Amino acid sequence: MGPATGAADTGAADTRAADTLAVVGEVAALARIFPRLPNADAALIGPGDDAAVVAAPDGRFVVTTDTMIHGPDFRLAWSTPHDLGWKAAVTNLSDVAAMGATPSALVVAIAAPLDTPVALLEGIADGLRDACAAMSPGTGVVGGDLSVSNTLVLAVTAFGDLGGRSPVLRSGARPGDRVAVAGALGLAGAGIARLFAAAQSDQGTAETEPVAEQPVAKRPVADQPVAEQPVVERPGGARHPDAALGRAVRAAHPAIVEAQLAPVSPLGAGRSAAEAGATAMLDVSDGLVLDAGRIALSSGCSLELFHDAIEAEGRALRELDSTIGAEAEDFVLCGGEDHALLATFPPGAELPAEFRVIGEVRAGQDGHPLVTIGGRPYVRPGGWDPFDDWNGAVG
Amino acid sequence: MGPATGAADTGAADTRAADTLAVVGEVAALARIFPRLPNADAALIGPGDDAAVVAAPDGRFVVTTDTMIHGPDFRLAWSTPHDLGWKAAVTNLSDVAAMGATPSALVVAIAAPLDTPVALLEGIADGLRDACAAMSPGTGVVGGDLSVSNTLVLAVTAFGDLGGRSPVLRSGARPGDRVAVAGALGLAGAGIARLFAAAQSDQGTAETEPVAEQPVAKRPVADQPVAEQPVVERPGGARHPDAALGRAVRAAHPAIVEAQLAPVSPLGAGRSAAEAGATAMLDVSDGLVLDAGRIALSSGCSLELFHDAIEAEGRALRELDSTIGAEAEDFVLCGGEDHALLATFPPGAELPAEFRVIGEVRAGQDGHPLVTIGGRPYVRPGGWDPFDDWNGAVG
Repeated sequence: MGPATGAADTGAADTRAADTLAVVGEVAALARIFPRLPNADAALIGPGDDAAVVAAPDGRFVVTTDTMIHGPDFRLAWSTPHDLGWKAAVTNLSDVAAMGATPSALVVAIAAPLDTPVALLEGIADGLRDACAAMSPGTGVVGGDLSVSNTLVLAVTAFGDLGGRSPVLRSGARPGDRVAVAGALGLAGAGIARLFAAAQSDQGTAETEPVAEQPVAKRPVADQPVAEQPVVERPGGARHPDAALGRAVRAAHPAIVEAQLAPVSPLGAGRSAAEAGATAMLDVSDGLVLDAGRIALSSGCSLELFHDAIEAEGRALRELDSTIGAEAEDFVLCGGEDHALLATFPPGAELPAEFRVIGEVRAGQDGHPLVTIGGRPYVRPGGWDPFDDWNGAVG
Repeated sequence: MGPATGAADTGAADTRAADTLAVVGEVAALARIFPRLPNADAALIGPGDDAAVVAAPDGRFVVTTDTMIHGPDFRLAWSTPHDLGWKAAVTNLSDVAAMGATPSALVVAIAAPLDTPVALLEGIADGLRDACAAMSPGTGVVGGDLSVSNTLVLAVTAFGDLGGRSPVLRSGARPGDRVAVAGALGLAGAGIARLFAAAQSDQGTAETEPVAEQPVAKRPVADQPVAEQPVVERPGGARHPDAALGRAVRAAHPAIVEAQLAPVSPLGAGRSAAEAGATAMLDVSDGLVLDAGRIALSSGCSLELFHDAIEAEGRALRELDSTIGAEAEDFVLCGGEDHALLATFPPGAELPAEFRVIGEVRAGQDGHPLVTIGGRPYVRPGGWDPFDDWNGAVG
């Protein structure tokens, strides 16, 4: 991950880096973006015509769409352009993988303010390319749309191929099935909590400023546990995302902050789960308990998460970031944006290597909680919900 | 077209009409929107899981994506919610049709400010449904995403099935082919020019106000030709879209204003053209000359548009709106957003009934204009380009 890795035009780089969408215009901007986008093996007709044509060898295709909006979904003070492209790819491709499909292609619509540097769009393209190369080689961008807006928007639609298998839905879990997860839990939630707690300032800034000029050492960045840095409200303000502080927090807490800004999803595990006979599956994007509840509700079952397994997940999270204390289990259970795959497998199935068992499907009963942990209901302590929690700040 | 025709809950209608996205939340808003969306015959798995599964019977699918942004692409003062849904469907489905495909399905991502009435989103859903029913029965919405944003955004991705035919690209035109068009030319461009000229006021408003309280009669709405109402800049202001004036202009000029706000595209003509052997085709979205130039450039040819044919198109436009004078041909040639289909057919082909011949493909020569009219190059007088022309106003 890290910054964009595309070839830099070192000679004219300074001039080109300052070019905005308004100065360059749509056609020239697209000419700079197109060569950086990943090619799709499934593209029969790629970008450049009214529409693309994509191979769908088994006579069906899987499709999902997800949008990232500047403000509620990301802050330019904290995310690099490369992060944005990377995350836009992963959030969509993991939904395709969660159906048991192999990702094939993406279309990407970007709407950006006229003063947006074209270099920012190039960075997004590089992030899309690098995410596909890292997690789903052969997946590429087959089309898109570039338009102008007061708010930076990335709208991505992703496709996948089932290879003749049935799609794995949320509704197939049966009592006796094991509940298993592939990928990390809780890191992304811990990362965003840390950023909101320690990477905001009174003014905030998305500009690149020398970190040394910021009084980083005096701020509660790395030395104190998250519990002492409440996320929701701090007396005295500190409400705006701050780029220099964001970089400092990222350097001090790389595992959790990068899991939030540029998440890694075990995309191939979706197909493996389907081949192993998974009865239900989804992408953990809104927190483990909430998403497990969706399988439970769709399947008419209850999902018991083993207390020991959740403790083990919490320990793993604390090992990745030693400042995370007793709230580690809460991040695991309700952090959100994990992009892990949660699946249920029948008793006789051999689980793919990527999955670890964390619970069991039980019969659903009216009035019973749909998700229990160690036999008891879990009261969700909250979590980021843009419909409830976004204060309108952009940053 | 007209206002939303979905079943109104007459009992609780007043309360429900006032509900905003912030008050209702994502889940309840989706529960109100879902039942209004059109069903897709091709949906194997519809909305509700991580991804949808869509039939692609010939082992490929056609895909295109297009975004509509509040500000540069539409104004809530002029477009009803129903218009927005209708136009979002048409702009995408006509790109699918332009490949020679039959539209099958859409996914729709909407990002809206928290104070957006849920009724507005219901109106968008009704517009999507009614556009599909009117122009492409059996096409429906198979998935989507609802999120929050400071700017209202509709991002639509549309799919189509080629039925075993080859896609019709922009690159297949050959000297001797006839150039033909299906659908209307120039109306949408005349409509937006009329709105910018006569439906703005000093303050502007997107609120519903009694038209009678607006001094409509004193404003230059219906009586003066477009030429006397320059679009680009007016001394003394009048820069903000005004809802009451918009309604008055629409009532006085229904043909051109509705072609702009809720366009009709001959979607079935795309498949007919492919079956008739069309060698190249595209959706006329940026103006006839610009889009004809794209066929010419991709095909390495020149496109001659017959002077008589363009005059006939201009006469037809003047008949639809008698206040349009000598500039009718300019609207035909560069108005934009027509969503007509422009195709080239080999000499022996029998043209489908929807198409009328307007020109001929000629050999391309270096330095020659790619598009000529009556043998002479056409100097484009301008036209709406959000990258150059949008002043940042939303309205």
